[in-house]
Amino acid sequence: MGVGIIGTGKALPNLKVENQKLTELVDTDNQWIIDRTGIEARHIATKETGVDLAVAASEQALGDLDRSSIGLVVVATVTPDMLVPSMGALVKKELGLENAVAFDINTACSGFIYGLWVAESLMKNGAVPGGNSGNQINRALVIGVERLSRIVNWNDRGTCILFGDGAGSAVLELSESKPGILGSYVKNYDDVTNSLTCGIEYIKTPFTEEGPQDNFLKMNGTQVYRFAVNAVGEVMDKVLEITGVSPDEVKYYVPHQANMRIINSIVQRFKQPIEKFQVNIYSTGNVSAASIPMALSDLMATGKVKPGDKIMMVGFGGGLSAGAILFEA
Amino acid sequence: MGVGIIGTGKALPNLKVENQKLTELVDTDNQWIIDRTGIEARHIATKETGVDLAVAASEQALGDLDRSSIGLVVVATVTPDMLVPSMGALVKKELGLENAVAFDINTACSGFIYGLWVAESLMKNGAVPGGNSGNQINRALVIGVERLSRIVNWNDRGTCILFGDGAGSAVLELSESKPGILGSYVKNYDDVTNSLTCGIEYIKTPFTEEGPQDNFLKMNGTQVYRFAVNAVGEVMDKVLEITGVSPDEVKYYVPHQANMRIINSIVQRFKQPIEKFQVNIYSTGNVSAASIPMALSDLMATGKVKPGDKIMMVGFGGGLSAGAILFEA
Repeated sequence: MGVGIIGTGKALPNLKVENQKLTELVDTDNQWIIDRTGIEARHIATKETGVDLAVAASEQALGDLDRSSIGLVVVATVTPDMLVPSMGALVKKELGLENAVAFDINTACSGFIYGLWVAESLMKNGAVPGGNSGNQINRALVIGVERLSRIVNWNDRGTCILFGDGAGSAVLELSESKPGILGSYVKNYDDVTNSLTCGIEYIKTPFTEEGPQDNFLKMNGTQVYRFAVNAVGEVMDKVLEITGVSPDEVKYYVPHQANMRIINSIVQRFKQPIEKFQVNIYSTGNVSAASIPMALSDLMATGKVKPGDKIMMVGFGGGLSAGAILFEA
Repeated sequence: MGVGIIGTGKALPNLKVENQKLTELVDTDNQWIIDRTGIEARHIATKETGVDLAVAASEQALGDLDRSSIGLVVVATVTPDMLVPSMGALVKKELGLENAVAFDINTACSGFIYGLWVAESLMKNGAVPGGNSGNQINRALVIGVERLSRIVNWNDRGTCILFGDGAGSAVLELSESKPGILGSYVKNYDDVTNSLTCGIEYIKTPFTEEGPQDNFLKMNGTQVYRFAVNAVGEVMDKVLEITGVSPDEVKYYVPHQANMRIINSIVQRFKQPIEKFQVNIYSTGNVSAASIPMALSDLMATGKVKPGDKIMMVGFGGGLSAGAILFEA
């Protein structure tokens, strides 16, 4: 019994914001941003809601699949449109997924990997003969969606240049014959220096003594870089070990798109040609939980992936958290 | 292979707010609140963070268990302290759970049930011989924690009387010999009338046209009541059906604590004595994802639960969502 990926999609907001535009907001420079990060532009939602983006990406991923066949929607996000209902519930309603259960998960930029890990587990566990779950799930949607522009400090040139908005979606399917996901591993690491944080603004209650909280993203880039390089190596090593697959046997790599330097460090560590790596950071920036499914959708859209190709996805981010999944197309 | 509950705990903020106190804020009445809801008081966090409450509840649940044995933390919440890191990551760090992976899930008031369902599945799937998961999880913490006082509209007498703050926690353990969770079923229903919503306030971006969003809870009590009565019946029926257990064979019921009238409707529908129902709404109000694990902790603390007793938990809430889990103590 395997869980494979049978459809992918992505959606970006209409507005594309080039680096040059950001020089009007903060003291920065187009070439400096490109040299340090690889980012040339990012998309920013103006009228699009997170649900709009998630639904558009999922419509692509679903194609003409029977929507009543979807039994689960997992949405990974740190920037939900609402606290209630969940993004999953809103997407389910908008797409008319009458038989789906839905919830959101938050593991920051690693969210899509954790979402796949959770969805795969629920699908397999529901299919155990004589099992105890009332939820049998043959197909699932796993979505990463973010509007990071709403948690970026637009006065901080160190962070506002890095992030963007967007959504990516994947359809999973249980299969008796295809292996699909070959191996997965997720890991958390304590963020002892608070290197990557984002608060949330709530109303003041008549009983609360605390003051207002920062509701924007703060990042120590150097600390996050060091963490990411080590964590990515660790979770990928583990997945290669449990699957018995060598780095050379992996046909394509789909890493989280936080910084071109981190992607280059993976290239070097695993001695793989950069051409095997799907990169979209140039035009999207870091879109947290949406980066990997958007890059996966781009890879699938090239038409170069053949049945049986092995593809490694790897994520890392706030928490701190990391995870890798190897699957067979 | 079963997943059992081997420890429970709860934590409430120090400040207890009686109904009488609320008459100073809105036009309401102690007896009116009691008659309509069953609520006499609720606890409101003043200095306590959500993490403080989650950690205190989890320390109770863990007792003297080896903390390095915890492989997973799932936190169900609609009111996280931060967007990044997740509450799970913060709890992991604070409790020193060196081997745990962590994430948050949001399914509103049904969150604890969904969290158990997800955790059980990850634990069982990780234990499949020759399986593809690098995460073997023998013990897990599933936590429900809320500070609903921060999303309540303190000018709306229809809602501010209903909610409170708190946390409940449960330790799950894989077992070769004990069945633990006998059956589970979760279901989502489209909230076509937007009967239960809560927005979230983000910063305004230089590119965004939308105005500020309501960042408090809105509820149509009548619609939610009708939904809850039907949904609770449906998910409990399904769990009883797949487990072959009759309502009479269930020793204790631990329902979500939203309104005494809804609990009474379950009593009537399943023709069970009210004494079988664990009720804490009197002193806590509705604490969303924390209500069920707090009530479960209260039940366990009575000492009356014997090994082999069957206990049914049932949740419902925003999304709309519902779920039930039957387990053997």
